[in-house]
Amino acid sequence: MDLSPAETPRGPLAGLRVLELGHYIAGPFCTRILADLGAEVVKLEPPGGDPFRGWGASVGGNSVWWSIHGRNKLCAEVDLKRAEGREAVRRLAARADVLVENFRPGTLERLGLGPEALRALNPRLVIARISGFGQDGPYRDKPAFGAIGEAMGGLRHLTGHPPGASDLPPPRCGVSIADDLAGLYAAIGLLAACWRRDGRGTGEGAVLDVSLVESVFSLMEGMLPEYGLFGRVRHPAGEAIPTAAPTNTYPTADGGWIVIAGNSDPIFRRLMALIGRDDLAEDPRLATNAGRCAHVAELDAAIAAWTRRHDALAAERLLEQAEVPACRLYTIRDCAEDPHFRARRAVQEVEDPLLGRVLHPGPAVHVSGHPPETVVGWTGPAVGAHNALVLETLAGLDAEAARAARGEERGEEVVR
Amino acid sequence: MDLSPAETPRGPLAGLRVLELGHYIAGPFCTRILADLGAEVVKLEPPGGDPFRGWGASVGGNSVWWSIHGRNKLCAEVDLKRAEGREAVRRLAARADVLVENFRPGTLERLGLGPEALRALNPRLVIARISGFGQDGPYRDKPAFGAIGEAMGGLRHLTGHPPGASDLPPPRCGVSIADDLAGLYAAIGLLAACWRRDGRGTGEGAVLDVSLVESVFSLMEGMLPEYGLFGRVRHPAGEAIPTAAPTNTYPTADGGWIVIAGNSDPIFRRLMALIGRDDLAEDPRLATNAGRCAHVAELDAAIAAWTRRHDALAAERLLEQAEVPACRLYTIRDCAEDPHFRARRAVQEVEDPLLGRVLHPGPAVHVSGHPPETVVGWTGPAVGAHNALVLETLAGLDAEAARAARGEERGEEVVR
Repeated sequence: MDLSPAETPRGPLAGLRVLELGHYIAGPFCTRILADLGAEVVKLEPPGGDPFRGWGASVGGNSVWWSIHGRNKLCAEVDLKRAEGREAVRRLAARADVLVENFRPGTLERLGLGPEALRALNPRLVIARISGFGQDGPYRDKPAFGAIGEAMGGLRHLTGHPPGASDLPPPRCGVSIADDLAGLYAAIGLLAACWRRDGRGTGEGAVLDVSLVESVFSLMEGMLPEYGLFGRVRHPAGEAIPTAAPTNTYPTADGGWIVIAGNSDPIFRRLMALIGRDDLAEDPRLATNAGRCAHVAELDAAIAAWTRRHDALAAERLLEQAEVPACRLYTIRDCAEDPHFRARRAVQEVEDPLLGRVLHPGPAVHVSGHPPETVVGWTGPAVGAHNALVLETLAGLDAEAARAARGEERGEEVVR
Repeated sequence: MDLSPAETPRGPLAGLRVLELGHYIAGPFCTRILADLGAEVVKLEPPGGDPFRGWGASVGGNSVWWSIHGRNKLCAEVDLKRAEGREAVRRLAARADVLVENFRPGTLERLGLGPEALRALNPRLVIARISGFGQDGPYRDKPAFGAIGEAMGGLRHLTGHPPGASDLPPPRCGVSIADDLAGLYAAIGLLAACWRRDGRGTGEGAVLDVSLVESVFSLMEGMLPEYGLFGRVRHPAGEAIPTAAPTNTYPTADGGWIVIAGNSDPIFRRLMALIGRDDLAEDPRLATNAGRCAHVAELDAAIAAWTRRHDALAAERLLEQAEVPACRLYTIRDCAEDPHFRARRAVQEVEDPLLGRVLHPGPAVHVSGHPPETVVGWTGPAVGAHNALVLETLAGLDAEAARAARGEERGEEVVR
């Protein structure tokens, strides 16, 4: 098996060797972004595979999300409870640039695979550790869940309707945001450490400590100094942006919603002309943003009276013609069928040997010299697809030791 | 003025020279993360400053959020409408490793500062471009707003309550998530390009193209292949996670909410014991996650009956004693006062010359050898604080040209 199935390197990280001891979302999301940028990512999974493979919709036992989450990775099974499995990790860590892990703090150390042990083998190794609460502090041993990271990092309190507007529990933002953010910060940290080691030439590795809680907390804008200075606590504001008007989410005739950002002076006048309310466009009370904020309810009612008479798509087209920024709330269907997404290769059709023809997202970062259509080298592979390549060719184990490392009995015939 | 006020370099990016032509959130958020990791960030602002400085709460005209958003940056004014201003950009780009910009596509080109012109001066330059819709495709010229990026990237549709549960418009997640995500992806892309240039030694620059829409869209989990294979469209699910039970957000006696993740078999039994419902713990219908999902309403009602009798903080403590993962919805006050945040230096008290004693978040990534308490070299500086350093020392303009570059008349006496 060729390590680089594509004719040309897929991205700027070609040649960077990443070892993933990850599971579920945060660690694997980090390495998927690196793999999309061309890194060699070796993912070690327990025998039978990352339990993530069983998540969500599947075809013939193969998770659909995995097609993306595992793409461009080399996947091998390793049983960390066996000495041969841990030896495989050591050998792969010795040749790696980076190790990414998201076990509970202390797990690697208990296995004899802590940073000290690994860096004794490979002083250049950069180790990125992702956990719920971080590698130290009083909560470090608590079990980590994305929902807890969202709640403790301050985001859950802000998502939802203003106090008193609804009896329903505050909603999630709808995706695994804490895990994703931690994965992105880990990628930033490890690339910074690699740049220092290889670009500045220090030759030194590093250990990075990224938590779900602090990753979420990093998005709290100016709230922390506001609290410190004024004792002010920000509460959820629903769909509104309290400091600008009119900008909001409005109901449409087909039961949908449309975001309209009509809050600059010229855009406001164009919007009022479109909805047949030139009287408001010319109202001196509403000539400035401050004045419009003071009468936001009246403005929102006038705009909603117009949006309710149009389906979301029709309203969006009329607003576009009037050069008023607007967007209906895209569902995944809207994204998949949109001409801009297709033109940017943000939506691509690829062949998945496990699933057939599937849609994949393009690269999150477009890099000159690496066309977006080359981002998918291969889709998330089957469990153990690269066992021989990883354990024998890369780790240098003989066939018997490789079988033992992946948890099969010595000498036993392997049948799949 | 010393370029590195701290005694020791603050992070792994010490020595990386970043030039920011950014405004508002996405570009400056990217460079703030880089500055926190030790990069030299030169921010060029229009005369009078980035309009962001007027956002939100302020003290004496100085924005509180800016204290964080501008920290560790060197800030100088440049008038891009003047030839001397554009010359300053060219000279600073010639000595930079990276340029980060978030103008509308085409703006730099119209100023004669497009990637071709800049890379003719400095072939090593890595240029990270952030925009609403990307540098190409049919929507590239539309005005970019974070709210539009959230809506078109698919997140707004997912945030909120299930269809029919509420008449209120779907809420925002509560923070500027599209801008933040684009800033993080730009940081990843530019560090990857710097690693290739300096670590692999190609010496080549690169141009990166990051959009708000695709940054949000990158978080859509397995939804795109699910739509492609099955035509399935995911809709908002409120606060619930439909595939596990019991895990939800429950009301408390003091009008608050608490997230409880009680969805593993042993945690479920401990949770039922705590709330005095051993009958449910022993009910064979509820022994597995699948069975609990089938009776989730009954379980949620039993748990809520218990949480309604306790204040949020008290409930959290009882759940912690029972080893059931739980967290109230932290407000910014909860974050600021929490012992774990303080122990991790995720909340730090620093002196801001413009505001006095303020609270700042610590580093999003903890890097070995760089203690988190060293992350704040200085707080967001005043407009033009580093005019002389940047324009004269770094760009090498004489005093008269520097005055002209920042939009002041030649020879005019400068009084501040």
